[in-house]
Amino acid sequence: MLNHATPKISDRMEPVSPSAIRETFKFTSMPGMISFAGGNPNALTFPSAEFAALSAELMEKNPVGVLQYGISEGFGPLRELTKSRCREKFHIGAEDDDILLVSGGQQGIDLSLKCLTDEGDCVVSENPSFVGGLNAIRSYNVKLLGVPMDKDGMDTDALEHVLKTEKRVKLIYTIPDFQNPMGVCMSLARRRRLIELAERYGVTILEDSPYHELRYGGEALPSLKSLDSTGHVIYCGSYSKTVAPGLRVGYLILDGALAPKFTAAKQVTDVHTGNWPQMLIAEYLTRFDFDAHVEHCRDVYRVLRDAMVQGLTRNLAGCDSVRFTRPEGGLFIWVDLPGGKSGYKLFEALLGQKLAVVPGSAFDPAGKRDKSGVRLNFSMPTKEQIEQGTAIFGETVREFMA
Amino acid sequence: MLNHATPKISDRMEPVSPSAIRETFKFTSMPGMISFAGGNPNALTFPSAEFAALSAELMEKNPVGVLQYGISEGFGPLRELTKSRCREKFHIGAEDDDILLVSGGQQGIDLSLKCLTDEGDCVVSENPSFVGGLNAIRSYNVKLLGVPMDKDGMDTDALEHVLKTEKRVKLIYTIPDFQNPMGVCMSLARRRRLIELAERYGVTILEDSPYHELRYGGEALPSLKSLDSTGHVIYCGSYSKTVAPGLRVGYLILDGALAPKFTAAKQVTDVHTGNWPQMLIAEYLTRFDFDAHVEHCRDVYRVLRDAMVQGLTRNLAGCDSVRFTRPEGGLFIWVDLPGGKSGYKLFEALLGQKLAVVPGSAFDPAGKRDKSGVRLNFSMPTKEQIEQGTAIFGETVREFMA
Repeated sequence: MLNHATPKISDRMEPVSPSAIRETFKFTSMPGMISFAGGNPNALTFPSAEFAALSAELMEKNPVGVLQYGISEGFGPLRELTKSRCREKFHIGAEDDDILLVSGGQQGIDLSLKCLTDEGDCVVSENPSFVGGLNAIRSYNVKLLGVPMDKDGMDTDALEHVLKTEKRVKLIYTIPDFQNPMGVCMSLARRRRLIELAERYGVTILEDSPYHELRYGGEALPSLKSLDSTGHVIYCGSYSKTVAPGLRVGYLILDGALAPKFTAAKQVTDVHTGNWPQMLIAEYLTRFDFDAHVEHCRDVYRVLRDAMVQGLTRNLAGCDSVRFTRPEGGLFIWVDLPGGKSGYKLFEALLGQKLAVVPGSAFDPAGKRDKSGVRLNFSMPTKEQIEQGTAIFGETVREFMA
Repeated sequence: MLNHATPKISDRMEPVSPSAIRETFKFTSMPGMISFAGGNPNALTFPSAEFAALSAELMEKNPVGVLQYGISEGFGPLRELTKSRCREKFHIGAEDDDILLVSGGQQGIDLSLKCLTDEGDCVVSENPSFVGGLNAIRSYNVKLLGVPMDKDGMDTDALEHVLKTEKRVKLIYTIPDFQNPMGVCMSLARRRRLIELAERYGVTILEDSPYHELRYGGEALPSLKSLDSTGHVIYCGSYSKTVAPGLRVGYLILDGALAPKFTAAKQVTDVHTGNWPQMLIAEYLTRFDFDAHVEHCRDVYRVLRDAMVQGLTRNLAGCDSVRFTRPEGGLFIWVDLPGGKSGYKLFEALLGQKLAVVPGSAFDPAGKRDKSGVRLNFSMPTKEQIEQGTAIFGETVREFMA
């Protein structure tokens, strides 16, 4: 008999490891550790009571609808509800567009790559960017190129340079609202420029916008999709941050001409998204005031965002060279050290003081190159933890910079 | 402004269309149509009452567990329950094996392809085979080669010929139990031979076994996984046919050395399977008698299988050249016409008589080549529909053969 043999892993999966952020989570369960490392929504925002009633009722009234196979495009009523809400409230989705319900925003990214990129093509992302998006891109054996970020989002001049020099760019992956990890929004001027570039170079934009509705202040900016009149933007939305992530429901709003292939891709991937979460959200949207619920989510997060911004301001007083973003929404703040100091070493120093953050290297499109920044999350810790944690942060940064 | 432009679809998705079987479903909703074309489990087998109680309780007692992000490997208690049941009852899964919960068997197939095949590699399937499996394979831009089936399953001599001549075979996709569409089981001798070939040629076997527990008579056969001692078999199981498909929960039992990459693939694809269906099934397995429930499913299907076999026997009396399988389990019967007559033309003739079946061409690995067979499903129609439908079938076949 032959020996035990482990098969060769595909070239596409060889470079993909479970998220580096998840690896840092093992520290967060250590006793006494305060964690600013997470990225989950706060359970206080979940409509648990309403769902308990709806869930019981759904299964009692329509068990076959919940339990039998559903359709790949998604549960009809939720498609309609989502489509009209996006259109009426945010001008997202045009006459010729279609909507596909997916198993969370992550699957929206995955299906876009599956349908629109070939191996050896090039995909552009922001640098730094969401590790789940980057890993999804890597798993398609494409060339992943990062374009620098600043306080106004992706640097569109740097993007144009890439588009001029790289022949096979198929997709531009961007998080224009409250970007993960930096917390910033792309400026209106850059949004317009990005669409113009996508049109000129014939490239599709994948607009990943899970935090779109989580704005706690400032002026709302139009989504890329709402500015697009030539079918160059695919909008990837999610119910993970405004309802609950454990349900795994997101959506793609895209040119109707693309819908049949995306539906086929969904079908070969997992047939359809589970019926129960789709039906539950549809009932919830129909019978409760969703706008009021989203307002409640904003209220919860605004307090935490304010606490963290105030804590950092207070504890970094005098350290003017250390800059941090003051996000108008989303879940994250980015702290940047001067003079190219190592974010990874700061991360290690903070761990020693029982504060977990995520080093910027986790968000690097090119691999795990060290960055001068770290990401702080304010959606998960309590106000008290934010106060203690920002004090530790300030003290450690001062020592670190000394 | 540039004109509206639809981006180019990737090479991998270009040849993949939504399932041809789904296309036949539009006929099944025509008034007066009897359908043997489906493939769904019968809703009579769903544990709806138990689920109504469990669902309400779950959401009331542990809303955060249901609604917050879960882990990519799957809900711990369900992993343990599934692993021990498979091991204790069917000897599926060895000491070094791991289990990964996935969003239905379809995702198990998808992740196996993602992790183990490169573009240009070769994947072998049975011919005919499950269209969802074939389309998943096609969507990885690999060379898909079908190996003929007979009443004992995949022809392992023909398989060896392929393995000798094709250098890049990475995966053998097989449904050894109550195969879709033929309803037959792979013989024990061929199971042993298949594993021997996989070992000799260093190829992984993907054992897709959604109908494994749905045996209505005859002797149980050991799964390929239980016969494998060298890590060459990945077992893909499903709760779709023994609990309910709308929950989208399946599982992969595989060599522990593969688990980290498969987990990473799951993470980039959809982060994790929804918590609620996993928790619901775990509670159900813990608090109810699952073996008794599976026995109930078998009782429901045995009656329908018997009705269809008897109906075909009665209505095809004298047509000895028309052969059909007498499956000991699963959901399907395959009818084969003599002399290479067209299964597609029979499908059309049957539609004219208001009976929907699926033409064999839908299950062709090479494309949609006509076959001499059609697939009949007995899990969805009522006993009365089976009696009427087999009468129509017999009459139409007689005319067709005349």
